[in-house]
Amino acid sequence: MQADDILLHDLDDKGILRLTLNDGARRNPLSEAMLTRLGTAFAEAGADPAVRVIILAANGPAFSAGHDLKEMTAGRAGPDRGRAYFTRILGMCSDTMQAIITCPKPVIAEVAGIATAAGCQLVASCDLAVAADTAQFSTPGVHIGLFCSTPMVALSRNVGNKHAMEMLLIGDMTPAARAAEIGLVNRVVSPEALRGTTLEIAGKIAAKSSMTLATGKRAFYAQREMTLGEAYDYATRVMVENMLARDAEEGIGAFIEKRSPQWQDA
Amino acid sequence: MQADDILLHDLDDKGILRLTLNDGARRNPLSEAMLTRLGTAFAEAGADPAVRVIILAANGPAFSAGHDLKEMTAGRAGPDRGRAYFTRILGMCSDTMQAIITCPKPVIAEVAGIATAAGCQLVASCDLAVAADTAQFSTPGVHIGLFCSTPMVALSRNVGNKHAMEMLLIGDMTPAARAAEIGLVNRVVSPEALRGTTLEIAGKIAAKSSMTLATGKRAFYAQREMTLGEAYDYATRVMVENMLARDAEEGIGAFIEKRSPQWQDA
Amino acid sequence: MQADDILLHDLDDKGILRLTLNDGARRNPLSEAMLTRLGTAFAEAGADPAVRVIILAANGPAFSAGHDLKEMTAGRAGPDRGRAYFTRILGMCSDTMQAIITCPKPVIAEVAGIATAAGCQLVASCDLAVAADTAQFSTPGVHIGLFCSTPMVALSRNVGNKHAMEMLLIGDMTPAARAAEIGLVNRVVSPEALRGTTLEIAGKIAAKSSMTLATGKRAFYAQREMTLGEAYDYATRVMVENMLARDAEEGIGAFIEKRSPQWQDA
Repeated sequence: MQADDILLHDLDDKGILRLTLNDGARRNPLSEAMLTRLGTAFAEAGADPAVRVIILAANGPAFSAGHDLKEMTAGRAGPDRGRAYFTRILGMCSDTMQAIITCPKPVIAEVAGIATAAGCQLVASCDLAVAADTAQFSTPGVHIGLFCSTPMVALSRNVGNKHAMEMLLIGDMTPAARAAEIGLVNRVVSPEALRGTTLEIAGKIAAKSSMTLATGKRAFYAQREMTLGEAYDYATRVMVENMLARDAEEGIGAFIEKRSPQWQDA
Repeated sequence: MQADDILLHDLDDKGILRLTLNDGARRNPLSEAMLTRLGTAFAEAGADPAVRVIILAANGPAFSAGHDLKEMTAGRAGPDRGRAYFTRILGMCSDTMQAIITCPKPVIAEVAGIATAAGCQLVASCDLAVAADTAQFSTPGVHIGLFCSTPMVALSRNVGNKHAMEMLLIGDMTPAARAAEIGLVNRVVSPEALRGTTLEIAGKIAAKSSMTLATGKRAFYAQREMTLGEAYDYATRVMVENMLARDAEEGIGAFIEKRSPQWQDA
Repeated sequence: MQADDILLHDLDDKGILRLTLNDGARRNPLSEAMLTRLGTAFAEAGADPAVRVIILAANGPAFSAGHDLKEMTAGRAGPDRGRAYFTRILGMCSDTMQAIITCPKPVIAEVAGIATAAGCQLVASCDLAVAADTAQFSTPGVHIGLFCSTPMVALSRNVGNKHAMEMLLIGDMTPAARAAEIGLVNRVVSPEALRGTTLEIAGKIAAKSSMTLATGKRAFYAQREMTLGEAYDYATRVMVENMLARDAEEGIGAFIEKRSPQWQDA
């Protein structure tokens, strides 16, 4: 399908789904079409038992340059100067970012080039991120009068206040090595090693019980927003249910018996 | 004016306001007079369209040694052993720190010497901080029986729990390089490069739309205290309004047309 | 006493209490017996004026390997498949971790070997942590179908989201040096220097006013869960009361008079 071209799907036999932003000539903008495709892809992958972990990669020199500014400028044509359109497209973008958080499958960003504005937000929203040393990150909206206010929601939940503010107020590029220092990405490798390293991490995760991963990912983001006491009450209940689940009984039994576990959904 | 001497104002033609703590012989204590002057300065700078960004610097070997302990001890003389006085002076201090957060102009700390107790809090409260490698930071109240409980509010919103607790429970000096590692300052440079580096950052920020900076700074601190869902709902609304503002239309137009933007307030 | 063997107590004349996990042959599991002992130990140490600071150390090659999986598996025997038992043991574990937070005495983890699952949580729950370069940390529950959901409450309050997720989703060992980079431990030293470094830190803390430490530790964890405005209102009140306390008057007076303070409880 023609419409499929901007987002490629590739599911391997280990349950690793590779989603590739494929509008590289335009620097993979998060256009309305791309946001729609991403939202659908995360929803479908979340519901598909064959998918155990997701890699979000990109073709072309840029990971993603964020919103499509020409598309957004065209949105100003309406009698409301674009209010309804901006509300819709920015809402779609925020929904897509949250779809990564609510997706029960872990999502790993694989970043070789620049990830700017909502493209940087996309990396920040993933559970894990691996970058090539050629990758660069920025929230440059401040250069064009449009502060990266939605990207900062994701950014500031990954890096400290001073580091987030530096990126947001100045808008300069942050090289991959610095992005790793401040916590925006997990690892930095050579461009040649990028795909292999990401696949290795994805392979480790794909070998786990999907039920367990889904339980843990949901609990992680839920408990981050609670007080310590609430978080312990909640996580304790989550852990009791997890103990009672078939895969924990199997996993603990296999560990004690020194054999490999057989997950229910594998 | 005599009263002006402890805090110097210097506004350049780019809109960079340099506020300099100028009670260096006493290590720039946050005396009642200094807190009053700082509170007024941030309020006035926030309201002054000629000010686009603020540098907070200090004369003398210390950035600031925090509260004026002799002044506070004198406050014990009252029949209530100082309760009303301490409530007033500590409330003033907390208000001054929050005045930096609520000031619509970005504030950059420029730190060459020691910044201790409420002086360290002052650095932590700024949006950005640049330090010379001669700078040192501490929350040493624990040495004198007075835990740095108000400084820790700002400190713990910049650095991790273990790092904050190390500074608070032990009270030792943290060198500039370590302060950068843990996220208390953005950059460490040589003493000779300190002023130039800070000015360069300030210059970049001063070139931005003040409306955009104010929108983003306010949104940053607001969304940090929300759940992820609330933060996205809020930031999406902020971004819609920002898109509809004149400076975003100008900035995006200038970007697409490859020309320099002309901000409304510049 | 026989029951005392799994947790050793050693209180020195400076007020440094050394608690040593002493079930090293079994890798110091957080069995029901050990959790009971730890809970009691923190409660008693918190109430004992002779204890000024606590070191939590371990004998044997492992700091702690977390829950006792054989004990937990035995708990499945009941008609409810273990629900009541798991609720009790996991609740005990969460209570023990929170007993470290609510203990008015600072707690320092001294880690020479592996600290995994609830053992890693124990380190994360301490106020400070010193590790030998032989130490390693992990939240490996995902390997056995049981996500480390309660450990992540403590872990994610020490390290950034991406780093926490990497440990939780992959389950691999994090070496001590990396644990220091991400904020899980304060310092890494050679195995030979571990005990001395920890004692030096403990000695500095033991020299402080216990009233002041208790005030500050309680306030630290309380204000972390408040908005900035609430935190300042609260911390300002805490600081006024601290100023009015005898040890602050003594400490500030001693500082001004350049003499050593004499704490009330020392």
